[in-house]
Amino acid sequence: MTRFSSFAALRGACLDLPEGDDAAAGAARARDAVLTKPPGSLGRLEDAAIWLARWQGRHPPRLERIEIRVFAGNHGVCVHGVSAFPAAVTTQMVDNFARGGAAINQLAAAAGARLEVIALDLERPTGDFTRTVAMDEAAFLDAVATGHDSVPAEAELLCLGEMGIGNTTAAAAVAAALFGGGGARFAGRGTGVDDAGLARKRAAVDAALSTHAAVVGGDPLEAAAALGGRELAAMLGAALAARQRRIPVLIDGFVATAAVAPLARLRRDGLDHAMAAHVSAEAGHRALLDELRLQPLLDLGMRLGEASGAAAAALLMRAAVACHAGMATFAEAGVSGKL
Amino acid sequence: MTRFSSFAALRGACLDLPEGDDAAAGAARARDAVLTKPPGSLGRLEDAAIWLARWQGRHPPRLERIEIRVFAGNHGVCVHGVSAFPAAVTTQMVDNFARGGAAINQLAAAAGARLEVIALDLERPTGDFTRTVAMDEAAFLDAVATGHDSVPAEAELLCLGEMGIGNTTAAAAVAAALFGGGGARFAGRGTGVDDAGLARKRAAVDAALSTHAAVVGGDPLEAAAALGGRELAAMLGAALAARQRRIPVLIDGFVATAAVAPLARLRRDGLDHAMAAHVSAEAGHRALLDELRLQPLLDLGMRLGEASGAAAAALLMRAAVACHAGMATFAEAGVSGKL
Repeated sequence: MTRFSSFAALRGACLDLPEGDDAAAGAARARDAVLTKPPGSLGRLEDAAIWLARWQGRHPPRLERIEIRVFAGNHGVCVHGVSAFPAAVTTQMVDNFARGGAAINQLAAAAGARLEVIALDLERPTGDFTRTVAMDEAAFLDAVATGHDSVPAEAELLCLGEMGIGNTTAAAAVAAALFGGGGARFAGRGTGVDDAGLARKRAAVDAALSTHAAVVGGDPLEAAAALGGRELAAMLGAALAARQRRIPVLIDGFVATAAVAPLARLRRDGLDHAMAAHVSAEAGHRALLDELRLQPLLDLGMRLGEASGAAAAALLMRAAVACHAGMATFAEAGVSGKL
Repeated sequence: MTRFSSFAALRGACLDLPEGDDAAAGAARARDAVLTKPPGSLGRLEDAAIWLARWQGRHPPRLERIEIRVFAGNHGVCVHGVSAFPAAVTTQMVDNFARGGAAINQLAAAAGARLEVIALDLERPTGDFTRTVAMDEAAFLDAVATGHDSVPAEAELLCLGEMGIGNTTAAAAVAAALFGGGGARFAGRGTGVDDAGLARKRAAVDAALSTHAAVVGGDPLEAAAALGGRELAAMLGAALAARQRRIPVLIDGFVATAAVAPLARLRRDGLDHAMAAHVSAEAGHRALLDELRLQPLLDLGMRLGEASGAAAAALLMRAAVACHAGMATFAEAGVSGKL
């Protein structure tokens, strides 16, 4: 069981990251260049195969084992009426995941991926961060460790997602603390709040930024503890573990992106092993991706969470690997090259 | 064997199209509304499930049988040096398809789709349309009929693509004839021509539009015969057959879009059963999709043809159908609805 003894210890781990494997990436690039297609004509599928090789540290890249982790948490900020759904839905949806009835169950099966859902103290919501910290240092580090421990070293691709009524408000607060701006920049309609609900979300984010002014623009980990949620902390831990264990990551939507953003805040290349699976319809996601210089793979107007966008992108990763591994070279096929 | 006896007979068939099935679409919409997710939160995956139901005329939609058709043709316009690859590559790639070495072989397998490649008189390139018609009426109608006959009534989704050195020049000429503009608007780098090659392509398109001024802005079928190619004509026939047989269509890239565009030119709703699988990196594709009011599903910088983008989109169709069919309803799962 992983233990991070303090913010400082976790910060140290986040700063001590392995680089990608240039040799594996170079081998992938060399093979890609001689496959029977005009150079670059498979676009981002080519980039994906090379990226997978780099961060798996292996050529050719493989996708025998795709793992999806969905973390669930409850949020004290829900008392402010920031969601279109009651907080009880978090637990109800965790039950739905267990019975196979949610979108991510179907998408995981379609992607040939293994799904694990990890509920984090659902009966104990985080603190109402408009008034107090969402989590103290110990609670935050516990959730990070849970996420970290959830990543098997044998995984070849990790899809990260979440479920938590109220968590787009937490994600907006974290994003604003890390990148500036307030509720107006990062709070969106989440599961579908009306105009009044959106105004309450923005006000809650702004109140939180005021209450926790000391961490705004400061240490990203302290901001994630004060303004985030357990499921966000767990995704951060999982993304860190993936980097340490040579596993490329597909980040799902707005909440997942905000969750792992501290890695990039602490170290400029801290998310190089992660790809934005999609840009969601949630209002603040595009701005957050831009801040992180992440170019999303898909733009399908999705805004469900649950790693649903990441699972959809995993299908394309499979396509990328299939082309890279299975295509003939110009020489093998006797196809003439460029004039 | 289908026969179209004249442009007029084919035009009549293109005007006499079945509508979508409102009842099947309504049933899909009704089910979508009670699945355990916020309304609309699966974005275009929800739209896709409803669209498949409408054009299959069946609820729930099914994807047991996805068919990919790749048509190959050779082009007289190649004498003007419009491609980065020699014309012999069309035949070489057809051989590569047969041996399973091309991108589309891997993508078809990933999508669980059946692939059939149909070579159209490769030893007999179309006429050089800068000086004469690409195909006379009989040759054009033959190719249309070949495409029409290639579509099995049992297919549940049809992916349309092509292979043909020189055919982005033909597609640009067709697009310009149908929608206005010249080589500068629709000619792109295709498989990767340099600046001089691009200038030659633009000049060839402009020369063709001048030679065939009588069909520019006139009958779309005559324009497709004069300026297109056999594989484009076959895709037109296949898209027509699909509409007649209640089979939704995924259009691949720039060439495939230009090929089926006459259906929408003849009848405003003529491509409602077709979805643009992706917007390719080929320069004129976005403008052509805009003219057709088609919103592409994917934007991955692909520009290979071979139905590669359509096959990638088919993966997402499978994901859409899996969610639609497999998810629990709020009532089944005991999940609370919106506040």
